[in-house]
Amino acid sequence: MGYQEFTIEGRNAVIEAYRAGKPIDKIFILDGCQDGPIMTIKREAKKHDTLVKFVTKERLDQMSETGKHQGVIAYAAAYEYAEVEDILQAARDKGEPPFIFLLDNIEDPHNLGAIIRTANLAGAHGVIIPKNRAAGLTATVARTSAGALNYTPVAKVTNLSQTIESLKKEGLWFVCADMGGTTMYKLDLKGPIGLVIGNEGEGVGRLVKEKCDMIAAIPMKGDIDSLNASVAAGVLAYEIVRQRQL
Amino acid sequence: MGYQEFTIEGRNAVIEAYRAGKPIDKIFILDGCQDGPIMTIKREAKKHDTLVKFVTKERLDQMSETGKHQGVIAYAAAYEYAEVEDILQAARDKGEPPFIFLLDNIEDPHNLGAIIRTANLAGAHGVIIPKNRAAGLTATVARTSAGALNYTPVAKVTNLSQTIESLKKEGLWFVCADMGGTTMYKLDLKGPIGLVIGNEGEGVGRLVKEKCDMIAAIPMKGDIDSLNASVAAGVLAYEIVRQRQL
Repeated sequence: MGYQEFTIEGRNAVIEAYRAGKPIDKIFILDGCQDGPIMTIKREAKKHDTLVKFVTKERLDQMSETGKHQGVIAYAAAYEYAEVEDILQAARDKGEPPFIFLLDNIEDPHNLGAIIRTANLAGAHGVIIPKNRAAGLTATVARTSAGALNYTPVAKVTNLSQTIESLKKEGLWFVCADMGGTTMYKLDLKGPIGLVIGNEGEGVGRLVKEKCDMIAAIPMKGDIDSLNASVAAGVLAYEIVRQRQL
Repeated sequence: MGYQEFTIEGRNAVIEAYRAGKPIDKIFILDGCQDGPIMTIKREAKKHDTLVKFVTKERLDQMSETGKHQGVIAYAAAYEYAEVEDILQAARDKGEPPFIFLLDNIEDPHNLGAIIRTANLAGAHGVIIPKNRAAGLTATVARTSAGALNYTPVAKVTNLSQTIESLKKEGLWFVCADMGGTTMYKLDLKGPIGLVIGNEGEGVGRLVKEKCDMIAAIPMKGDIDSLNASVAAGVLAYEIVRQRQL
């Protein structure tokens, strides 16, 4: 586990990194450079929403570790994902009932980072995210997590519903947030628990919701629909913290 | 009260708007246009961190309401701030003890928007922000507030400490979040209350903290320092909601 940034230097290396699906967060290109491979890189950068900065040759030379940047240096994120078993083991090591966050397609990297930060401070043993669609662990997520990504294990799974099923065999109960649920103060959120947080726009998916044992509602006294996803995650996580302290 | 976006069309109008300090969020400039006034506008846009988009004449013609855009259309935010008295009146109208958020220099517009959204849903009667340094009500804030800016009054004051002093005369108690405070579950947060949220990096300022009646600590069980400011605001606000429901 752990998060690192590393650089990729040279045209082919950067193009290959894009083709291999590596998460490139930022790219430095020699200002004025217009040839074929550089145009390809610019297109890929646009497609993948990479931040592009045009800089002087001197700047690139300074940044280069290999001395062979060929006019382009990319910054990529490398994160070694944990396994779900590592998260359960972390709970055992602490002698605590497992407390796990499961994120059902959080798309905004700022939300993802803030939620990992919350998971760390609320004493959760790990975070589980799905492989597809959702935001991955980029530099933005690492930054927004304020360092939590180095402490709180994050596991990536193919199918969140199946993961919930197998964690139920480990004794976990699952709660998701949804309007129309039971006010969170009235639920018993002590014991081994998985907190499921839904997508920013669509909430928790139907299949995942059906697997949940409890649906928690955060009291809404205002005029609009819902809290920001990372705020909702924080409010629910701290209701779990409160009940566990009782 | 209420948030609106409006357009400013034409070179001089846009330059004047910048000079008058109007919050311009986005600007559309005719692609390829390089003359003096346009260069001035580009410089101002850079200085004020305005999002600039270069578009065709057809696009500008479509967007124009006056038909006289001269190659530039700006989008500005207009928000009519409330007075502190309006917030107290909103509480009286609802027959509830006042519940007010006070933000001590929140700088990130996403945090500001998320906090206004939380204030609305937690049933707070308004939000008070300081005039200087802090983020103002831009289009980003309006968007992140998910519409809450249209319902929850926001007042801007010159001196937050003085505002706290005068609100104490109205019977409000003030709580701020800070490490080293009393665990929030042990505080009495019922009754008329002002919730003070500190700056993202520095927390609550010394002068403001000295005016607070209670310092609340959110239990921190992890490895890092602090929650994201909007998450912390949510967690504290919902502890107030919970206690008020008892």
